[in-house]
Amino acid sequence: MSDEEIHPGLADVTVTETRLSDIDGEAGELWIAGYPVGELAANATYPETVFLLLHDRLPDAEELADFEDELCSYRTLPEPCYNAVVEAAERGAGPMAALRMGAATATAVEPNDPEADALRLIARLPTITATYWRVLQGEEPIDPRLDLSHAANYLYMLTGEEPTAAQVAGLETYLTTVVDHGLNASTFTARTIVSTESELVSAITGAIGALRGDLHGGAPDLVLVMLEELMDAEDARAELEGRLEAGERLMGFGHRVYGARDPRAAVLEDAAAAFYDGDDDFFAAATEIESIATDLLAEHRPDLDLETNVEFYTAVLLHGVGIPPELFTPTFAISRVAGWSAHCLEQLEDNRLIRPRSSFVGEHDRQWTPLEKR
Amino acid sequence: MSDEEIHPGLADVTVTETRLSDIDGEAGELWIAGYPVGELAANATYPETVFLLLHDRLPDAEELADFEDELCSYRTLPEPCYNAVVEAAERGAGPMAALRMGAATATAVEPNDPEADALRLIARLPTITATYWRVLQGEEPIDPRLDLSHAANYLYMLTGEEPTAAQVAGLETYLTTVVDHGLNASTFTARTIVSTESELVSAITGAIGALRGDLHGGAPDLVLVMLEELMDAEDARAELEGRLEAGERLMGFGHRVYGARDPRAAVLEDAAAAFYDGDDDFFAAATEIESIATDLLAEHRPDLDLETNVEFYTAVLLHGVGIPPELFTPTFAISRVAGWSAHCLEQLEDNRLIRPRSSFVGEHDRQWTPLEKR
Repeated sequence: MSDEEIHPGLADVTVTETRLSDIDGEAGELWIAGYPVGELAANATYPETVFLLLHDRLPDAEELADFEDELCSYRTLPEPCYNAVVEAAERGAGPMAALRMGAATATAVEPNDPEADALRLIARLPTITATYWRVLQGEEPIDPRLDLSHAANYLYMLTGEEPTAAQVAGLETYLTTVVDHGLNASTFTARTIVSTESELVSAITGAIGALRGDLHGGAPDLVLVMLEELMDAEDARAELEGRLEAGERLMGFGHRVYGARDPRAAVLEDAAAAFYDGDDDFFAAATEIESIATDLLAEHRPDLDLETNVEFYTAVLLHGVGIPPELFTPTFAISRVAGWSAHCLEQLEDNRLIRPRSSFVGEHDRQWTPLEKR
Repeated sequence: MSDEEIHPGLADVTVTETRLSDIDGEAGELWIAGYPVGELAANATYPETVFLLLHDRLPDAEELADFEDELCSYRTLPEPCYNAVVEAAERGAGPMAALRMGAATATAVEPNDPEADALRLIARLPTITATYWRVLQGEEPIDPRLDLSHAANYLYMLTGEEPTAAQVAGLETYLTTVVDHGLNASTFTARTIVSTESELVSAITGAIGALRGDLHGGAPDLVLVMLEELMDAEDARAELEGRLEAGERLMGFGHRVYGARDPRAAVLEDAAAAFYDGDDDFFAAATEIESIATDLLAEHRPDLDLETNVEFYTAVLLHGVGIPPELFTPTFAISRVAGWSAHCLEQLEDNRLIRPRSSFVGEHDRQWTPLEKR
């Protein structure tokens, strides 16, 4: 059976239809539920985006208010989930490990209901992340505030202070921009898990596990480390050139599906420009570093099309908004959980068990040797 | 982009090479690490099977003793895991939900190490399952005994009594028989998660989520329900015929990859025959029901090739051994975790991120309508 064609990363295999997002990698374009990502991110609140993904249309004012109320009603963690997250933090588990433990227990005491579970998980990942972070810092967890928006409440639970309108707007744009992105590894994991007719909480827990990997959720916090090192360097260009000549990979550039600049980078750059409001040294230095890096990458790695990816301006924007770098990847999950959930519900609409084939390359018909003869 | 060929269940797509197991669905044959499943199950202890999967050869006596010692050393649950499992049971979570929560926290406080994590997870799933079960029954959890074998200790932790040699042998055969089975949905989930370079605990937690689905881990406990109903019926053949005429599905028959009888059914039937020792009414009635059911299925559903699958004799054997039916699927996971782990390590040997494509079928270039105009 080993003469079949093998598709190791499935990069050339189309596994499902979807109405949730579409990527044109060559042109560098992304549509979310039919809207160009820039059009959506410039206009939608995160709950509007979530409603759009789940219902394939925008809500009217009354529907949106009801939807926000329902999301709000799920913000408080069930006790087993709260306890697991606090314990994870007390023992110094990493942020994505804590998120996995929190997600695994997030709907522990509620009956299985895919639509409601989607909203419960979307509502609770920010509370899980903030609870973990507070305890890790040796501080008391802060209960969610039900009078604040989804984005504002997340920032509030991290610090205990009401965020500014600019912080909320920046985070809201981020949450909408990265909410869905085709059949990436975590989304595909979620669809594979529910394709067995398992529950949403298992699918989302699995997806968090996939997002944790360096090849996927990556390490947007390392972009910030790199930016800070380059800003401290006497000559950023010389420093970058040295790194490229030493064969180092620059963080924040290159993406498997884009030959062009990641369209989300432009959206997040605009959001960061609005947040930093034009007169901030950090933002100016970051855009300058992007420009030098893309020049040098075109010169040193012309074959690789290493354009700016979503992580670069994720780091710039989330840093400004006040998210600690350790929470950049969990904050990615806090957005993407809506995409995962919408993909799970879409998979269940017309489900087929996802079960590919493997090609056997080992020995055949081995014969048993008893222990004493080995 | 919607003119590409879609492969919804990936049933015809080969995604990886493997040396771990090979299935010939038409012939009804299965090889595990090169051994015909019957040859392996008749000879190997579960730790020998695990060593074989991980190292592609059988251990010598000293290696096996060291390997069993290492597995043994991981049996006790870390405190966060123990607490999560007890809490899950106290709140009445289902057995696979509890296993998901236990797995998610099972290596919470240890540094990431794929080989060691594999052994930790293999060693701990029995403790998680038994701890959950005891608390669910309102009884005290029982600490693992380090002087008992893997299979014997699991049975001991469930009841507090040392199992008989026949119970241990029956369970040992079961654990070896179902340890790996090609690229099923849970194994594929595990490989997809680690393909992002995530950790083993995330991959195994995701795999447990997939196994929980009715289309995969299925419902071997429902085979037992069916058997008991048929044994209570006045005329089992008439009862079965009535069910088939009413369009009901019979539990324990049919499998996506086998046109023939599942080879694991034969192995587990032999193990059950040895366990029940020839003079047991339950076993005799079960084989009689299998025979009537396969006759009737051939008559009523001739197009479907509904031969006896692994679940049928799983139920017969595990029931005899003393596993409560609610724990049949967790016990499947207790075996399969070794296959999942071996697949993860194999994936990492020559890794490529698993990221398939989707085909967009929604609208394009929608334009934003402000809330007040909807």
